[in-house]
Amino acid sequence: MTAPSAKDTSRPAPAAKAADHSGHCIELGANAPLRLDCGTELGPFPLAYQTYGTLNAEKTNAILVCHALTGDQFVLGPHPVTGKPGWWEIMVGPGRPLDTNRYFIICSNVLGGCMGTAGPAEKNPETGKPYGLDFPVITIRDMVAAQKLLIDHLGIDQLFCVIGGSMGGMQVLQWATSYPERIFAAVPIASSARHSAQNIAFHEIGRQAIMADRDWKGGAYHESDDQPLRGLAVARMVAHITYLSEKALQQKFGRELQDRKDVTYGFEADFQVESYLRHQGISFVERFDANSYLYITRAMDYFDLAEVNEGMLPQAFVNTPVRFCLISFTSDWLFPTSESRTVVHALNAVAANVSFVEVLSDKGHDAFLLDEPEFHATLEGFLNGAAEHRGLTWS
Amino acid sequence: MTAPSAKDTSRPAPAAKAADHSGHCIELGANAPLRLDCGTELGPFPLAYQTYGTLNAEKTNAILVCHALTGDQFVLGPHPVTGKPGWWEIMVGPGRPLDTNRYFIICSNVLGGCMGTAGPAEKNPETGKPYGLDFPVITIRDMVAAQKLLIDHLGIDQLFCVIGGSMGGMQVLQWATSYPERIFAAVPIASSARHSAQNIAFHEIGRQAIMADRDWKGGAYHESDDQPLRGLAVARMVAHITYLSEKALQQKFGRELQDRKDVTYGFEADFQVESYLRHQGISFVERFDANSYLYITRAMDYFDLAEVNEGMLPQAFVNTPVRFCLISFTSDWLFPTSESRTVVHALNAVAANVSFVEVLSDKGHDAFLLDEPEFHATLEGFLNGAAEHRGLTWS
Repeated sequence: MTAPSAKDTSRPAPAAKAADHSGHCIELGANAPLRLDCGTELGPFPLAYQTYGTLNAEKTNAILVCHALTGDQFVLGPHPVTGKPGWWEIMVGPGRPLDTNRYFIICSNVLGGCMGTAGPAEKNPETGKPYGLDFPVITIRDMVAAQKLLIDHLGIDQLFCVIGGSMGGMQVLQWATSYPERIFAAVPIASSARHSAQNIAFHEIGRQAIMADRDWKGGAYHESDDQPLRGLAVARMVAHITYLSEKALQQKFGRELQDRKDVTYGFEADFQVESYLRHQGISFVERFDANSYLYITRAMDYFDLAEVNEGMLPQAFVNTPVRFCLISFTSDWLFPTSESRTVVHALNAVAANVSFVEVLSDKGHDAFLLDEPEFHATLEGFLNGAAEHRGLTWS
Repeated sequence: MTAPSAKDTSRPAPAAKAADHSGHCIELGANAPLRLDCGTELGPFPLAYQTYGTLNAEKTNAILVCHALTGDQFVLGPHPVTGKPGWWEIMVGPGRPLDTNRYFIICSNVLGGCMGTAGPAEKNPETGKPYGLDFPVITIRDMVAAQKLLIDHLGIDQLFCVIGGSMGGMQVLQWATSYPERIFAAVPIASSARHSAQNIAFHEIGRQAIMADRDWKGGAYHESDDQPLRGLAVARMVAHITYLSEKALQQKFGRELQDRKDVTYGFEADFQVESYLRHQGISFVERFDANSYLYITRAMDYFDLAEVNEGMLPQAFVNTPVRFCLISFTSDWLFPTSESRTVVHALNAVAANVSFVEVLSDKGHDAFLLDEPEFHATLEGFLNGAAEHRGLTWS
């Protein structure tokens, strides 16, 4: 989500057919369907994923990376739809903290996504047409249950680590509560054990923007010429503001004008920050599905690990064998440090093995995707220590 | 903007014809048109206003109240369109800080508004049809220039005070720089001398939401059956989040569900905060015009008192005779205290008479509209002191 040279272009273009570009894809739930939180059974269903590096003979060096709201399995690029770099190239690769010379990195497109895993844009096997709103509403727990089937399929008894930022961090926490014996270490970054009222509110704006678009057609737009691209672009724009800090916006753009010396007294993008946001909206709709945006934001809103434990968050982690490392960023106002601290307190209350670092950063929530040396050093240090405890060695 | 019992209703209903309900209305600029910042001359044009209390014989007890983005001249109600109380009943009236037994309170609908003053929803005298986007883009300085014509018309040489919150505070600061000899005291509340990058960004979201609505029709919707109510509602919803603090949202709604025991696994307003936002959007479009929203947000974005003084904010206030009182609120993240402090520093740099109070509040930007005893006491104290200096007495 770093800033490209911001440009106005004309209309947004629709997303390319993502399923054609989804990389590895397996069919899951054929014999035993996945029972979702909403009560629906799903299966068989496709799950798309990528891997990087090599699984060792003992199958002990696997790291599952969980992507955020608008991410996908393409941690490294080029992205098959956009041709751009992957979303975590800064973190994953030879010599990077998630070193592909050491670890086997797995990342799957979440349930409800639009890059090959079952979601509203995928074909409903019963009708042969895209699900649209007939796709069942899914939860973070459902996403993780699907990932667990993938890990079973790969024959991995225990993941060395599950890691992710934002919604990825929610999945990490869900892994630690759903399948604590299946993971050695867990790294939730810039995340929370429950979605706050303000965050639900911002998601609701995005959904309302999509559903207000006449081209949304109650979710049944997939076979139409027109797609709800304007609404989806607005949803992306408002979300994008929440990913940056006020200071980052001020430093990056301030009140600078876009390719002009004076304001135009009109409604063009006079200011660079407007032009930047429009660019974010337009480029997003090239690769994302509007209904997927509804489903995935909803899954985040529903996430509350305390609520499913009668309001007692520590109950979610009783007797956990998992080693935790939580990381937050000082200028992140979407998932502020207080949210991570709440999780740390709960882990402390059950005497879990937990470390916690609040990284000084002015980059806002997006810091987990950016070059933040203290963050990268923290992560590398934690992984090295955990690898030693796990008995991982490399020649 | 306080919370009603939040309810989902069906579709938003369009705004009633505001001009029929605008109260006092005068024609200005008939002989000498108003030259706007954009270069266009406007005139004759209507300006709608309300007054409360009685102007004394010396005409020295007049307070001009400047309204915020979505406010209007109806400081006290009932509002002619909605039937609801006025927007500042808590502050204005007998025995209130802006005591109508002492002061003559004036409030006019801003230029660009939709409650009777010239704006995009008003008839263009040249065509007999609503202006739409043919209305010239206006600035805060233009709004204030129009208000000054009203004050001339009322025969008031010097206003005792100009006061307003948010965009109202911008107008107050503009009054102090455009017409310093015409005001005795100035109270900008929860405001700023320039709109920040983040605030421009949020405004741009609102404008994009409106312009993304097919019913907007390039601004030419006034003679159509359909109006861009969905887009306008989304614009209102996103703005509304910025008016509240994260803490206020959490305390008021948290993750409470709306009239249900469990989530519905769908896209209804499961959470109270969603229901509340939808209600805010729907009730707003009953009284506001979408093009007005574009014009007034634009005027705020363009506001930068330093920029028009070669980047030197103190230059805006050199030799000012005005007594200033600035007020900010600790939990206001839309116009944070740092913005008021910047103005205070500039005023100090030119040895102006200025007091400044940061009020401890968890109500966010909306605090200036709400019951905040320290705020009200501060304001009453400042007005009493200023009245004494002005030689105002009451039997």
